[in-house]
Amino acid sequence: MNVAVIGLGLIGGSLLRALAAHGHDVTGYDISPDTREVAAGAGTGTGTGTGTGTGAWQVADSIAAAADGADVVVLAVPLPALPPVLRELDGFPGLITDVTSVKVPVRDLLDNRRYVGGHPMAGKAESSFRASDPHLFDGCAWVLCLEPETPLEDWVRLAGLCTALGARVVPATAAEHDEAVARISHIPHLLAAALTNLIDGHPLAGALAAGSFRDGTRVAATRAELIAAMCGGNAPAVRGILPDVLADLEAYAGRLAEPDPVEALTPLLRRPGELRRGWPAAAVVPVEVECDREALLALGRAGGWVTAIGPKLSGMRPESDLNGS
Amino acid sequence: MNVAVIGLGLIGGSLLRALAAHGHDVTGYDISPDTREVAAGAGTGTGTGTGTGTGAWQVADSIAAAADGADVVVLAVPLPALPPVLRELDGFPGLITDVTSVKVPVRDLLDNRRYVGGHPMAGKAESSFRASDPHLFDGCAWVLCLEPETPLEDWVRLAGLCTALGARVVPATAAEHDEAVARISHIPHLLAAALTNLIDGHPLAGALAAGSFRDGTRVAATRAELIAAMCGGNAPAVRGILPDVLADLEAYAGRLAEPDPVEALTPLLRRPGELRRGWPAAAVVPVEVECDREALLALGRAGGWVTAIGPKLSGMRPESDLNGS
Repeated sequence: MNVAVIGLGLIGGSLLRALAAHGHDVTGYDISPDTREVAAGAGTGTGTGTGTGTGAWQVADSIAAAADGADVVVLAVPLPALPPVLRELDGFPGLITDVTSVKVPVRDLLDNRRYVGGHPMAGKAESSFRASDPHLFDGCAWVLCLEPETPLEDWVRLAGLCTALGARVVPATAAEHDEAVARISHIPHLLAAALTNLIDGHPLAGALAAGSFRDGTRVAATRAELIAAMCGGNAPAVRGILPDVLADLEAYAGRLAEPDPVEALTPLLRRPGELRRGWPAAAVVPVEVECDREALLALGRAGGWVTAIGPKLSGMRPESDLNGS
Repeated sequence: MNVAVIGLGLIGGSLLRALAAHGHDVTGYDISPDTREVAAGAGTGTGTGTGTGTGAWQVADSIAAAADGADVVVLAVPLPALPPVLRELDGFPGLITDVTSVKVPVRDLLDNRRYVGGHPMAGKAESSFRASDPHLFDGCAWVLCLEPETPLEDWVRLAGLCTALGARVVPATAAEHDEAVARISHIPHLLAAALTNLIDGHPLAGALAAGSFRDGTRVAATRAELIAAMCGGNAPAVRGILPDVLADLEAYAGRLAEPDPVEALTPLLRRPGELRRGWPAAAVVPVEVECDREALLALGRAGGWVTAIGPKLSGMRPESDLNGS
């Protein structure tokens, strides 16, 4: 397949490497001339791009040049950079996908384009092309969005591309995705920030802090701008779920005010203990899924994913329904 | 020194091993005959207890027998087990210390005894004698409480015992300790529980969850009874601090409701980012401390600790005052 990757940070750069290693004809572009130079030098195939599976790639000097002749364009730029990039792609006839961590706003931007939203749940502490890694997607969950307007054949083609890179392809609507990542990524960053603030002005607490504080606050070290961009870009979903967290914490505070706080608090902690000990699902079973929008979405809602593309799609799903599937 | 350790779980068992390895004459006791048998078998010195530094220890059949002739009794039983153990120690003339994770309630129980409260901040996933380890205290923070009524020479003697085991001895009042551990241990457990609940009934979220969820929820897998005992045993401190967490989360929610949520949220995330990147303190400097209650408490409040006992006490403290010392 002929693929253009726009934006060569950690995800875009890793995708360039992974797709080239799998024999695709890949062209990258980045707005930074320095990044283009580094990426071109690493590609050992500048200007050739033979698509012979040698692991080489091209780096183009413009978005239009990168997209010229591409079957698929992958947008691997931050959310605020999408509108100008999309203007450069006016009239592009192929399929567009993206790797942005929020999906409803991107879907709105891509209205009336041939588009399948995507989000590989992969990351690293470093975020530049220099940190890119062709194996970044091995075993990672990669959401591909299925909306009423999504052409199923385009979804399946992308799913084939992603599963070939080792990813677990999770079907979901953009709205379902945004709500899920608010739960498991955006709100964890906000809780980590609030927890970290508890050592502010309390050096004794900082000196005593160990495992539970270290783990609970780790992601608070992320740059403020990045956390704000993630949470702010998904503000409606985050705001919709934060009250649940507040309600739990208020319930704990209420139980701690009872005459026997230990006995009062214990029952509220059983369910989260069960859930956490059951996560990630230890037992998953193989399933076959009809190539059908509702069947695929049902698989995603049950915590499952697609592993390979064929006449039917192969997938996996958790065996138990501990967490309510 | 002749030391009795009452309660041979992870902490008591590790202390038995560590003290014996350092040449002390150590006798253990546990309410469970099975644990006594295992501990006696591991001690290779049942009934001998020569105190010659061979690493052997004795296991006694009663608290009174264990404490007979001891200079120090270490109570390594859970908080609810303390009152009956203390009744067995009526009339014991030596020094009593404990390892319980909450200090104000224990101080109240030990009123009018010769007592120095202690809390080694050490742990492991497993909690039985079989998991005990003589190196458990290497580098761990070990709070020793200094109150107006604490005999300074007893505090110094215990500090010498603990620093010899490799611990960093942190001077603090019981109230300061309880507030600090609420911040860095008890509230982290409650936040982890509330965060874990966000995947309840949301298998899609569970399937997408990765690093930030994993770390933020790790301690929610702890047994409900243990978390409730920790938090409920320190209920006043936990309840006093939870409103700060709620206020931060409400502030984040408020910023996310503004027209530009990214720009509105960013400034609130800078301080926790700075704090977390600065924790644990990278640079610590050696200090000498007068053997004086207020000087020692000031060291603890500045995030410092005692490392060795001599004519003056040697310690370390963070060089920077990033977190407000």
